Amino acid sequence: MTMTVSGEFERIARYFAPLAGDCAAADGLNDDAAALPVPAGCDLVVSTDTIVEKIHYLGPESPDAIACKLLRVTLSDLASKGARPVWYTMNLALPGKIDDEWLAGFCSGLADDQERYGVTLVGGDTVKTEGPTVLTLTGYGLVPSGAILRRGGARAGDLLYVTGTMGDGAFGLECARGGFPELNWGMRQSLVQRYERPEPPVALGPDLIGVANAAMDVSDGLVGDLMHMAETSGLHAVLLSPDVPVSDAVAEILSDSPDRLTTVLTGGDDYQILASVPPEKEAPFQEAAARHGVSATRIGRFENGRGVSVLDADGAELGLTRTGYTHS
Amino acid sequence: MTMTVSGEFERIARYFAPLAGDCAAADGLNDDAAALPVPAGCDLVVSTDTIVEKIHYLGPESPDAIACKLLRVTLSDLASKGARPVWYTMNLALPGKIDDEWLAGFCSGLADDQERYGVTLVGGDTVKTEGPTVLTLTGYGLVPSGAILRRGGARAGDLLYVTGTMGDGAFGLECARGGFPELNWGMRQSLVQRYERPEPPVALGPDLIGVANAAMDVSDGLVGDLMHMAETSGLHAVLLSPDVPVSDAVAEILSDSPDRLTTVLTGGDDYQILASVPPEKEAPFQEAAARHGVSATRIGRFENGRGVSVLDADGAELGLTRTGYTHS
Repeated sequence: MTMTVSGEFERIARYFAPLAGDCAAADGLNDDAAALPVPAGCDLVVSTDTIVEKIHYLGPESPDAIACKLLRVTLSDLASKGARPVWYTMNLALPGKIDDEWLAGFCSGLADDQERYGVTLVGGDTVKTEGPTVLTLTGYGLVPSGAILRRGGARAGDLLYVTGTMGDGAFGLECARGGFPELNWGMRQSLVQRYERPEPPVALGPDLIGVANAAMDVSDGLVGDLMHMAETSGLHAVLLSPDVPVSDAVAEILSDSPDRLTTVLTGGDDYQILASVPPEKEAPFQEAAARHGVSATRIGRFENGRGVSVLDADGAELGLTRTGYTHS
Repeated sequence: MTMTVSGEFERIARYFAPLAGDCAAADGLNDDAAALPVPAGCDLVVSTDTIVEKIHYLGPESPDAIACKLLRVTLSDLASKGARPVWYTMNLALPGKIDDEWLAGFCSGLADDQERYGVTLVGGDTVKTEGPTVLTLTGYGLVPSGAILRRGGARAGDLLYVTGTMGDGAFGLECARGGFPELNWGMRQSLVQRYERPEPPVALGPDLIGVANAAMDVSDGLVGDLMHMAETSGLHAVLLSPDVPVSDAVAEILSDSPDRLTTVLTGGDDYQILASVPPEKEAPFQEAAARHGVSATRIGRFENGRGVSVLDADGAELGLTRTGYTHS
């Protein structure tokens, strides 16, 4: 930790050091580095994300919600790689408007999530900026050596699975901006909640090793992310759009506006796991998901070839772009 | 790596993927995470720094100089902890004015430093911002398990050493802003160079293990950093100000303006190592420094007590604040 801001030592002692607790790796945030004791036989999986005020979050959200989003976005990446998250570091570029009350709320959100997910803050850096708030979080998890789940490991014949439901985050953002006034209050709230506090299936991640051939998290939109998985694996993916799981709230939206399936397929902010599972591992995969209380839905398959085909209920192919689709 | 910016995939493929090369841990930057193979018997040392345009660097510097500074600031931390740097990740929040030419220069600076210091890019995140450029670099190094050098390990009777020379970075910043027009051109250039491209003694770091009881890098000003070392170690530090090593350029400044010793002692941006060395390890410490071509100067000692005393040539104590000093 480099302290270049006047008063920053006090802020760190008051707000951040309690998050490090007595974790030896963090040394009370009193030093310039953390020392992570990676067990023999494990690789350290590192994933890092930066979110910017007004781009990746709106700004007026409660600071504890912003903290949750910041942390969970990275935990989602780690889980999808089969890693058990253990530590994290943060780099905060904060404008002058960030006051102690905001920091207290932000750290309260982190404290709750530390308990929920079993992770500990071990270091970081806090600096001033004249621009918008820029928050970086780097997560560190453990996998057995060489076992990290890559997005490029899918094989022809694999089944395509996704956890949770799709589209809630993207519709939640619209609700937070005042969209869907016709939707009932409870459903709008549940969607906003999913946008502000995604719920990646963190505990499931390590149990995907030896079960899935490839995995990644769905964060930039289901179809776009699937395109990357197919391309990196050198395969053709078939996505059965009617099988894509949606929440009750999204089902309600789709019943009025079937065209909004675009948002389900490409909207982003889902933070669920997309997994390529060989048929002989389908049962253990489903058992692992059930064990962790995670819904997992088969939505397609991998074949020889290239690209992604998205099929409708009649088996006809939808023409797709990265940000939408048209009937071909 | 999360790609949320249009065209970002192309930028990553063109500019950043070559920095990852064929490093297995990075997987060609094609995935959301890196897998670091930490050898058995080692801890992974993590240090991270964020620099903001117009705060930590001026802005108009050449992009390769900004890259050097970003990387070396963190390598300085790792070295001072006894770690051998191996990998790094980057999080770049870039305003629209950052064009391909800038990125090419930035990555060229990183490529040169990767070769110089033996480190490899393994991941990161690139996002847009409406504000100033915010650059985060996280460095990963290896130390024998449990051997990280902490700032709190000094013992009474230890000798206080510093590498390199003090004040060049702080005076270099003033020169870059047009200061010291009376100084000859070569000296001004050498100071600006030290501000823009610090030269932390990276190779020396691992050889300090078993030799120094405590170490940290000098980045926020010698006296302020020493205060932290003394406080964390629970000791009293005596700093002999006439013994603090300075470059020829700084000696020239001090001969005209002796009061500018303040800047040498508190200016910051030095990126050298402050080490607490027990008397019986003085010879091996000096040998290690010599082996790496690093100058190392004894500038004081640790005693029982608290706080820092800065003495002048007559042994009189200078009254100090964090940002300056007065004769007491």
